[in-house]
Amino acid sequence: MTVTYSSKVANASFFSFHRLLLRWRGSIYKLLYREFILFVLLYSVLSVVYRLVLSDPQKRLFEKLSMYCDKYAEQIPVTFVLGFYVTLVVNRWWNQFVNLPWPDRLMFLISRYKLCVQGKDEYGRLLRRTLVRYVNLTSLLIFRSVSTAVCKRFPTMDHVVEAGFMTPEERKVFENIRSPHLKYWIPVVWFSNLASKARQEGRIKDSIDLQNILKEMNVFRTWCATLFGYDWVGIPLVYTQVVTLAVYTFFFACLIGRQFLDPARGYQGHDLDLYVPVFTLLQFFFYSGWLKVAEQLINPFGEDDDDFEANWIIDRNLQVSLLAVDEMHMNLPHMTKDLYWN
Amino acid sequence: MTVTYSSKVANASFFSFHRLLLRWRGSIYKLLYREFILFVLLYSVLSVVYRLVLSDPQKRLFEKLSMYCDKYAEQIPVTFVLGFYVTLVVNRWWNQFVNLPWPDRLMFLISRYKLCVQGKDEYGRLLRRTLVRYVNLTSLLIFRSVSTAVCKRFPTMDHVVEAGFMTPEERKVFENIRSPHLKYWIPVVWFSNLASKARQEGRIKDSIDLQNILKEMNVFRTWCATLFGYDWVGIPLVYTQVVTLAVYTFFFACLIGRQFLDPARGYQGHDLDLYVPVFTLLQFFFYSGWLKVAEQLINPFGEDDDDFEANWIIDRNLQVSLLAVDEMHMNLPHMTKDLYWN
Amino acid sequence: MTVTYSSKVANASFFSFHRLLLRWRGSIYKLLYREFILFVLLYSVLSVVYRLVLSDPQKRLFEKLSMYCDKYAEQIPVTFVLGFYVTLVVNRWWNQFVNLPWPDRLMFLISRYKLCVQGKDEYGRLLRRTLVRYVNLTSLLIFRSVSTAVCKRFPTMDHVVEAGFMTPEERKVFENIRSPHLKYWIPVVWFSNLASKARQEGRIKDSIDLQNILKEMNVFRTWCATLFGYDWVGIPLVYTQVVTLAVYTFFFACLIGRQFLDPARGYQGHDLDLYVPVFTLLQFFFYSGWLKVAEQLINPFGEDDDDFEANWIIDRNLQVSLLAVDEMHMNLPHMTKDLYWN
Amino acid sequence: MTVTYSSKVANASFFSFHRLLLRWRGSIYKLLYREFILFVLLYSVLSVVYRLVLSDPQKRLFEKLSMYCDKYAEQIPVTFVLGFYVTLVVNRWWNQFVNLPWPDRLMFLISRYKLCVQGKDEYGRLLRRTLVRYVNLTSLLIFRSVSTAVCKRFPTMDHVVEAGFMTPEERKVFENIRSPHLKYWIPVVWFSNLASKARQEGRIKDSIDLQNILKEMNVFRTWCATLFGYDWVGIPLVYTQVVTLAVYTFFFACLIGRQFLDPARGYQGHDLDLYVPVFTLLQFFFYSGWLKVAEQLINPFGEDDDDFEANWIIDRNLQVSLLAVDEMHMNLPHMTKDLYWN
Amino acid sequence: MTVTYSSKVANASFFSFHRLLLRWRGSIYKLLYREFILFVLLYSVLSVVYRLVLSDPQKRLFEKLSMYCDKYAEQIPVTFVLGFYVTLVVNRWWNQFVNLPWPDRLMFLISRYKLCVQGKDEYGRLLRRTLVRYVNLTSLLIFRSVSTAVCKRFPTMDHVVEAGFMTPEERKVFENIRSPHLKYWIPVVWFSNLASKARQEGRIKDSIDLQNILKEMNVFRTWCATLFGYDWVGIPLVYTQVVTLAVYTFFFACLIGRQFLDPARGYQGHDLDLYVPVFTLLQFFFYSGWLKVAEQLINPFGEDDDDFEANWIIDRNLQVSLLAVDEMHMNLPHMTKDLYWN
Repeated sequence: MTVTYSSKVANASFFSFHRLLLRWRGSIYKLLYREFILFVLLYSVLSVVYRLVLSDPQKRLFEKLSMYCDKYAEQIPVTFVLGFYVTLVVNRWWNQFVNLPWPDRLMFLISRYKLCVQGKDEYGRLLRRTLVRYVNLTSLLIFRSVSTAVCKRFPTMDHVVEAGFMTPEERKVFENIRSPHLKYWIPVVWFSNLASKARQEGRIKDSIDLQNILKEMNVFRTWCATLFGYDWVGIPLVYTQVVTLAVYTFFFACLIGRQFLDPARGYQGHDLDLYVPVFTLLQFFFYSGWLKVAEQLINPFGEDDDDFEANWIIDRNLQVSLLAVDEMHMNLPHMTKDLYWN
Repeated sequence: MTVTYSSKVANASFFSFHRLLLRWRGSIYKLLYREFILFVLLYSVLSVVYRLVLSDPQKRLFEKLSMYCDKYAEQIPVTFVLGFYVTLVVNRWWNQFVNLPWPDRLMFLISRYKLCVQGKDEYGRLLRRTLVRYVNLTSLLIFRSVSTAVCKRFPTMDHVVEAGFMTPEERKVFENIRSPHLKYWIPVVWFSNLASKARQEGRIKDSIDLQNILKEMNVFRTWCATLFGYDWVGIPLVYTQVVTLAVYTFFFACLIGRQFLDPARGYQGHDLDLYVPVFTLLQFFFYSGWLKVAEQLINPFGEDDDDFEANWIIDRNLQVSLLAVDEMHMNLPHMTKDLYWN
Repeated sequence: MTVTYSSKVANASFFSFHRLLLRWRGSIYKLLYREFILFVLLYSVLSVVYRLVLSDPQKRLFEKLSMYCDKYAEQIPVTFVLGFYVTLVVNRWWNQFVNLPWPDRLMFLISRYKLCVQGKDEYGRLLRRTLVRYVNLTSLLIFRSVSTAVCKRFPTMDHVVEAGFMTPEERKVFENIRSPHLKYWIPVVWFSNLASKARQEGRIKDSIDLQNILKEMNVFRTWCATLFGYDWVGIPLVYTQVVTLAVYTFFFACLIGRQFLDPARGYQGHDLDLYVPVFTLLQFFFYSGWLKVAEQLINPFGEDDDDFEANWIIDRNLQVSLLAVDEMHMNLPHMTKDLYWN
Repeated sequence: MTVTYSSKVANASFFSFHRLLLRWRGSIYKLLYREFILFVLLYSVLSVVYRLVLSDPQKRLFEKLSMYCDKYAEQIPVTFVLGFYVTLVVNRWWNQFVNLPWPDRLMFLISRYKLCVQGKDEYGRLLRRTLVRYVNLTSLLIFRSVSTAVCKRFPTMDHVVEAGFMTPEERKVFENIRSPHLKYWIPVVWFSNLASKARQEGRIKDSIDLQNILKEMNVFRTWCATLFGYDWVGIPLVYTQVVTLAVYTFFFACLIGRQFLDPARGYQGHDLDLYVPVFTLLQFFFYSGWLKVAEQLINPFGEDDDDFEANWIIDRNLQVSLLAVDEMHMNLPHMTKDLYWN
Repeated sequence: MTVTYSSKVANASFFSFHRLLLRWRGSIYKLLYREFILFVLLYSVLSVVYRLVLSDPQKRLFEKLSMYCDKYAEQIPVTFVLGFYVTLVVNRWWNQFVNLPWPDRLMFLISRYKLCVQGKDEYGRLLRRTLVRYVNLTSLLIFRSVSTAVCKRFPTMDHVVEAGFMTPEERKVFENIRSPHLKYWIPVVWFSNLASKARQEGRIKDSIDLQNILKEMNVFRTWCATLFGYDWVGIPLVYTQVVTLAVYTFFFACLIGRQFLDPARGYQGHDLDLYVPVFTLLQFFFYSGWLKVAEQLINPFGEDDDDFEANWIIDRNLQVSLLAVDEMHMNLPHMTKDLYWN
C-alpha cells in the first residue's frame, strides 16, 4: 500500500522532516536493514582480520591496498549516475500513476445515459451494468499482465469469472477468439458493439452522446495500453546494470578502502582509529537508499510498501462504477434554494 | 498566503535581487531561525568544551576527530542530491497549482445557457445555481481531504451544509450512498443527471451544448482527481529520507569538523581562529534553506507562508460562479460603436 | 523590447558566437557594469589597504584570512545551484511566452462568421467588432495586473475607456458588479452572452459554429488565467533567496580570498602578483551574468531589454483583430488558376 | 526483441538488483565483451612492454608519460557529458515508443461501424477489411524507411504485395503517382476517400461517425510522421561525436595512465602493483556501458536486443485489426445478469 | 541539409560509434578546423616565444603566469554551463522541428471533400487548389521571416508571386491591407472565408466537415505562429554571452596555462615536455564541439549542414498537397479481396 505522509509535512516547521526519519513503514531502514547487516558484517570481518590475523608484512600490503581502493572509491561518480537514473525512474513511475485507468469519466456518461433511455426497465439496467463491467474487465486484463499482485489474485481466467468480472458465456466467446497476442482489446470491441447496438435501439438518443462514450472508452483503452507499454518496454537493462555496477563497485571499494589503518604508521588521513566508520555507514544508507528508490519505483505494481495498490483499484472501480450507474439511478436530490439565494 | 514578489523584480536593476534578501514574510530567515539558533548553540557548546574543558590529550583527540569529520563532510554530495530532489518537488508543486479546480470555464457555459432557456423564471435560476453549487461542492470535498487548512475549517459534513455548499436534503442522499471509498464523485453524478434532465425538459436546447457542459465537468473532475492523486501518492518516503539524512549528516559532520582548531598546532588549513565560522553558518543557511524549499512545497495545501490559499479559492469560486450565473443574468451592456469605428 | 539575435547566428561559422560578445543592447555588460564597478572598487580598496596601510603583523593576519576565504569560496556550489535555478526560471519564462493571449484563432472564426450572417449591415459589423473588443479587453485586464509596463500606461479604468477598449456604458456595468476578486472574467461572460444572443437571432447559423467560438474563447481565457497564475504564484521566495545568498557569499569570499598576497611570503599558489585578478573578474561576469539571466526572466513583463513587449502586443492585437473582422470583410481575392494548373 | 525484466524486480528485496547483473541477453556483458577484450589486450601489451622491453631511461620516460596521462584522464568530464547525452537519447527513445502506430483506436471505430452499415453482406466486409488494410499499409511504408529490420524483410514493393498489405492493382495506382518525396501518405488519402464514399453510400450513417474515423486516421498518420521525423532528424552528429570523442579519449588516457608503475620508484599513488587494474576495468564497463545505452537507443528500430520489434508490431497489427473488424463481427456475447445484480 | 546517420548506428556493434568519428559532412572537424588551426597557431607562437625568445628571468615569470592560468582554467565550470545550456538549446531546436508546418492533415480533409462536392467540374478543382495554396502561402510567409535560406530565395513578394504561391491579384489585395505588423495571417482569413463560401454554396455539405477543416487550419496557423515565436524570442542574449565567455576564457587560460614548462625547473606536474599538448587539443575539440552544437541548433533555419531544409519543405508541401487534392481525384483503387480473406 502506498505510504502517504504528506499530511505530516503540510507545514514546514522546526526540523519538520526529521519526524519522517523515525517512521518504519516504507522507510529506508525497513528496506535496507538486511543489506546493512551484511555490509557491517563484511566490514567487521575484514577489520578483525587486518587487526588480529595478518602478519606485519601482510598488514603493510593490506594498508597499501586499502589506500588504493579508497582513492578509486572517490573517483566513482555514484552521485551523478544515481541522480540521472533515479530522475528517469521517478518520471516513469509518475507517468504510470497518471495512466492508471479510472472508469469515472465513463461512468458519468453511462449513468447520465440511463436518463436518456427510459431506463427504469430491467433491460436498461442490464445494459448499463454490462457496459461498465466491460470497462472494468479491460483494466483487469491489463493489470493481470502488469502487476504481480493482481496476477497472484487472478492466476487464471477462472478467477476472473468467479470474481464476477466476466460471465461464463463471455469467457467462452473470449477464448474462441484465437490470437497469439494479448487479448485485452476484446472487451473494448464488445463495449463499442454494445454501445452501437444501444444507439440503434434508440436507447442512446444522439450520435453525439454515442461519440462521447466511445471517445472516453478510447481514452480508457489508451491508459491501459500505456500501462502495458511501460511494463513491456522498461528502462534498458544495460542502464540498470551500469548503475547497479557503479554502486556495488563503490561499496566493494569502501569495504577495503575505508578500514581504519594503524594510526602509528602515519598514513595521511589515517591518524584516528574510530573502529566504527560512521560516515561510511551513513554513505551506505545514503547511496543504497537512493538505489532502493529506483528499485521500488521501477516496477510500481509489485507488493512493495510504496507500490500502487492495483487490487484495491480494481475493487474500488467495480464497486463505485456499479454504484454510479445503477443504485444512483434517479437518485437526484430535490432542488431547493441555496443559502445565498438573495 | 502565497508570497508574491514578482512585481518587486520586474526589472533587472542594480543588485535587484538583494532587496529580496531583506524581506521577512516567506523568507529563509523566518523559516530557519529556530534551526539556526540550535545549530549555533550546539557549535558554541562544542567550541567552549574544546577550548576550556578538554585536557591536552583530549584536545589532540578532538582535533583528529574534527579533521576526520571535515574530510567526510566535503564528500557528502548534498548539492546534487538537493538539486535533483528539489527539482522533483518543484515540478510536482507547480503541477498541483496547474490542476487547481477553477469553475470559470463551466460557469461561462452555464451562464450562457440561461439565455438558451427562457431562464428568467425562478426554476431556471434554481437550475443554474444548483449546477454551479454541485461544481463547487465537488472541489470542496476534494480540498477537505487534501488540505489541512480546509479540513480545519470544515471538519465535518455539518460545516459543509452550514456553509451553504450542500442542502440538508442533499446531505441525506449523500450519506445514504454507502461506499468505503471517497465520495467526491457523487456531486458529479448529480451534476450530469441534472444537466441531462434540463436537456430533456428542453431547457438545454442542443445536444452539442449538453456535450460541452459535460465535457467541461469532466475536465473539472479530472483536476480534482489529480489533486487527490498528488496527495495520495507522494514522493516515495525513502527518497525524502535519503535527502534529509544527507543534509543532517552533513551538518552533524560540520558541527565537529568546522571547529577552529588551535592555530599553534599547525594543522593544515587551521592557522586562523575566527571564533565565528562565517562560511559554515552561511552554508547552513544555504543548504537548510534549499531543503526548506522542499519542505514548503512538498505539501502546498498546508498553512505555510507560501502555500496555496485553498480556503480563499473555495470562497472566491463560490462567490464568482454564483455571480456569473445569476446576477449577471441579462447583464449585457448595450452595444455602441467603438472608438475606431472608422 | 525583446532582443532578437537569432538571424545573426543562423549559420555556425568561424567563431560565430564571438560576434555576440560585442553587442550592447541586452548584453551582459549593460546589465552588469554597475555591479562590476562596485566590485572592482571594493577589491581595489582592500588591495590598497593590504599593500600600503596594514602593518606587518596585520598583513600576516590578512593573509591567513585571505587563504581561509579562498578555501571556502571554492566550496560554495554556485554552479549547480545556478544551473538548477536558472533552468527552472527559463522554463517558467518560456511557458509564459507560450501562454501569451493571441486573439488570432478567435478572429478567424468571427471573421468567417460574418459570411454566415448576412453581415453587411451595420448591426453585423457592430456585433463582430464588439466580440473582438471583448476579447482584447479580457487580455488587457490581465496584462494590467501582470505587467508593470502596461500598468503604467493604463493606471486606471479611465485610461482603458479612453483607449477605446471599453465603452463608458460598459464601464458602468463593469463597476456595478461587486466582487472582491479580480474581474477579468466579466468580459468573457459578456462575450458568451453576446455570442448566444447572436445564435438566437440566427446570425450564427449553427450550434457547431457557436460551440467553436465558445471553445476558442475558453482557450483564450485559459491563457489569460495562466499568465495571472504565473504572476500570482512565483518561484518560492526562499529558493530565490538561497540562490542569491550563495552568489553573494561567493563574491564576498572572493573579495578577500582572491587578493594577491606578497609573493615573497611563499604561500602556495601565491607566487605571482598580477595586481589585476583577471580570472576573478571573469568569474564575476560569468556568475553574476548567470544570475542576471534569472533576474531578467523571473518577471518577463517588466521593462528590461529582454522582456515581452506587453504594450506592443495589446496594440497589435487590437489593430489586427479589428482589421480581420471588419475591413477584410468580403475581402476575398478572385480565384484564378494557379501556375501549376496543368 | 525488447528485454523485459520488470517482473523480476517487482518487489524491492534483498539486493534485488544484483540478480539483474547475472543476465546475458541484453546485458552489458554481451554488448561489451569484444571491446573489453580489446581493451585488456592493449593494456596487457603496454604493461608487458613497460615491464620487460623498455630500458631504464625509457622506463623513466614512460612513467612520466603515464602520470601525465593519468592527470588528464581525471579532468575529462565523461560523467556529465554522458549524463546529459544519455538523458537526451533516452527521452527521444521513449518518445519514439510512445509514437509507435497502433491501429486499435481505429479498428474499434471501424468494427463498430459494421453494425451501423447492414454489414453482413460481402461488400461491407470488403469495405472494413480494406480500410484497416490501408491503415496497416501506411505504418508498413513508414517502418520500411525507418527500421533496418523491416527493410530487410520488405526490401521491395513486391514483398509488400506478396505479404498481402497491398493488392497488385493498388500497387499500380501507387506507382503511377509520381512524386520525388516519400509516398506513405497515399494510403491515407485512399482511406479518407473510401470512408467518404462509404458515407455517401449511406454505409456510414452519420457525419459525426465519419469525422471520428477521419480524426483517428489523422492521429495515426501523425504517429507515422513523428517516427519518420525522429529518423530523419537525429541528434546532431556533432553532439554524438563530442561524446564519443570524450569517452574514447578517456580510455586512451587510461591505457597509459593507469599502468602500474614500479613501486620501487616511490611515485605518489604508485606504491602497489596489482597487475590487474580492477577499478579501471570496472570503470571501463561502467562508462562504455553508459555509452552503449546511447548506442542501443539512438536508433531503436535496429536489431539490437533492446530494440522495438517492428516486424512483430506489423504482424500483430494486421492480425488483430483484421480479426476485430471481421471475425468479431456480430460477436457480442449474450448479456446476462452479473454476480452483483442485487 | 540535415545529416542523417541513424541507419549507420541501427545496431550497437563493436565500437559502432567510432565509425561516426570518420565522417566529414556535419562533423566536428568540418565545423571546427578553422578555430583549431587558430588555436594551434597561437599556442605554437607562445611556445616558441617561451622556448627561444624570452630571457631567463622572463621565463621564470612566464612559468609563474602559466601555472596561475592553469590553476584557474580548472576552476571554470565549462562542463556544467555547457551541459545546462546545450540541453536548453536542444529542447528548443526539437520543439521547432515538431512545429514545422505540414499541410498533410489539411490536404486529407480537402482531398476528401472533393468527393462531397460533385467536384469533377473545374470550379471544384479551383476551389481545392486555391485552399491548399493558401495553406502553403501561410507557411511560406512565415518561413521568409524565420529562415535566412528561404529569405534569400524569396527576397521580395515578386518572387513569391513568380513561384506560383500567390496570384498577382491576391498580391494586390494583400498589399492593400495596411498593417504595421506581420501579415502572415491574411491567407488564413482568406482560407476561412473561402471555406465558408464553399459551405454556403453547398460544396461542403456539413457543418461538421467545415468545422474540421477550420480546426485543422488553426492547428496549422499555430505551428506557424510557434515557429515565429521561437525566432522572435530567443534564448536571452545574456545567457549565450555567459556561456561563450566561459568557454573562451577557458581556452584563453589554456593557451598560457597548458604550455610545457622546462622540466629541469622541477615544477609539479611539469616533468615531461611533449611539445604537442595532446589532451589540451582534445579538450579543445571537445568543449568547442559542444558549443558548436549550440551554435548550429540555436537557429535551425540557417544553412548549416544540420539545419532544417526549409526550402525543401516548401517545395515538398506544395507538390504533395496539389497532388493530393487534384491528381489523386477519384484515384481510388478498385477494392478486391485481400490475401487473408478466409
